[in-house]
Amino acid sequence: MDYPNRSYVFVNDDMVPMEKASLHVSDLSIQRGYGVFDFFKIRDGHAFFLDDYLDRFYRSAEIMHLKVPFPLANLKAIVYRLIKKNNLPESGIKMILTGGYSADGYHPASPNLVLTQHSLSLPGREQLEHGIKIITHAYARDFPQAKTINYTMGIWLSNKIKESQAADVLYQQQGIVSEFPRCNIFIVTDDNKVITPADNVLHGVTRKNIMKLAGKKYPTEEGTVTMDQLLRAREVFLTSTTKRIVPVVQVDGALIGTGKPGPVSLSLLDDLVSLEAEDSRINAFP
Amino acid sequence: MDYPNRSYVFVNDDMVPMEKASLHVSDLSIQRGYGVFDFFKIRDGHAFFLDDYLDRFYRSAEIMHLKVPFPLANLKAIVYRLIKKNNLPESGIKMILTGGYSADGYHPASPNLVLTQHSLSLPGREQLEHGIKIITHAYARDFPQAKTINYTMGIWLSNKIKESQAADVLYQQQGIVSEFPRCNIFIVTDDNKVITPADNVLHGVTRKNIMKLAGKKYPTEEGTVTMDQLLRAREVFLTSTTKRIVPVVQVDGALIGTGKPGPVSLSLLDDLVSLEAEDSRINAFP
Repeated sequence: MDYPNRSYVFVNDDMVPMEKASLHVSDLSIQRGYGVFDFFKIRDGHAFFLDDYLDRFYRSAEIMHLKVPFPLANLKAIVYRLIKKNNLPESGIKMILTGGYSADGYHPASPNLVLTQHSLSLPGREQLEHGIKIITHAYARDFPQAKTINYTMGIWLSNKIKESQAADVLYQQQGIVSEFPRCNIFIVTDDNKVITPADNVLHGVTRKNIMKLAGKKYPTEEGTVTMDQLLRAREVFLTSTTKRIVPVVQVDGALIGTGKPGPVSLSLLDDLVSLEAEDSRINAFP
Repeated sequence: MDYPNRSYVFVNDDMVPMEKASLHVSDLSIQRGYGVFDFFKIRDGHAFFLDDYLDRFYRSAEIMHLKVPFPLANLKAIVYRLIKKNNLPESGIKMILTGGYSADGYHPASPNLVLTQHSLSLPGREQLEHGIKIITHAYARDFPQAKTINYTMGIWLSNKIKESQAADVLYQQQGIVSEFPRCNIFIVTDDNKVITPADNVLHGVTRKNIMKLAGKKYPTEEGTVTMDQLLRAREVFLTSTTKRIVPVVQVDGALIGTGKPGPVSLSLLDDLVSLEAEDSRINAFP
């Protein structure tokens, strides 16, 4: 296989070159898809909103009965050690915590911790200028508040997304909208209210930041979003760490609003870019 | 970690010693819990009902859009090569097919195939003489017909099973019973009808064999089993490759029938043992 970069990977106690980063086949991720992870962005040595991502990582681990082998301060130091060693200006770090080398291939053992760093590219101008088309699928994740590694449904739907010439798939169940496999969703109503689903969603860090930013300008709500509300929305957009904000202009073939990215979505994207700049000033690692 | 035996593992094209069997961290099982597997029993060089297990393995792979890198005949030859090399008299072979080394950590690549062989012990006399207690949980697997590696819910429930001093957990949804994380379920009604759930279940090879054997003596049905039918059943038992038949005598604290393993369960277990003996006579590898 190709390794996109010559980066180092942190595996348990070691920094190893990417090509040597492996886990024994008895690991519970390979045996039973059991593990949690998290992912955050790096630019010029700064990890954006790192405390939020680390908090969520420990919370995911706790929900899934896995113990992160280091206290938070040590893990944070490891993150900055990796950033320094790899020296990748525009990148992302993924932290995976698996169920460990299980003796019986079922019950969790001492977890394995893997940190990888990869180059990262933001969504292109095309997506921001024209917005994206999405489809929907009836589903809700098993442990929505935990960022588990279980993407069986999301990955299986890749073919359906491709066939529909869509960019992503949104989960709904009995007409109640929740989330994308890897992103949160927001709608903007006719009276400029910004709403994001409260239940059956991962508590995205970008979602939290957008709620904070939107709250300065618009009425906001974490509540119920129905398929009907979604289709009648003036604007729809998704949020994620990698994508920030991407306008959604078509759902299951139906146009949203004017069919073009709306002013609320684009102004919140500007605000988010400013917030990132502020975070790198205030929270620079000493 | 401890390796229970010094066996060899087949990884893609190689036979490697157990301690060297690993996958790179970019594998989609580690990244996203994406893969399928299957498992069958070996005794004295014979793989029981091998064709059924291989068929299901290819079917699982197809459902999950993964391609087994060998045609069936070649995979069968690899299985027998591994059996010969390891020479473990009472054992099981697990075949895992993952989403492969994914360039973007999300979309499947060329799958990795891993075959491991482990010593195996059948359920003890205790379980057969006294039966087991089980609990239930509201859940249905995402792709019930595929044997995916996604056991997130099953493993998460291990704590709940332990707290309840139960032996296993049975999935039901809105009062309709489906399966255990790793076993199928059967009930025997007051008029000696043997019923197993038709929907939302893995098509177990032992389940199929038991249906065939039960059909010679009793009326049988693949149909709907409600929680109410389960609790009013004269006998309840589970089936699996490893466990064959284990009588269930308590569900969520309520006694089943007399609270002791019943004659239908035990006679079908005898029949299954005979069928295994027949299979090793008829289907011995040339």
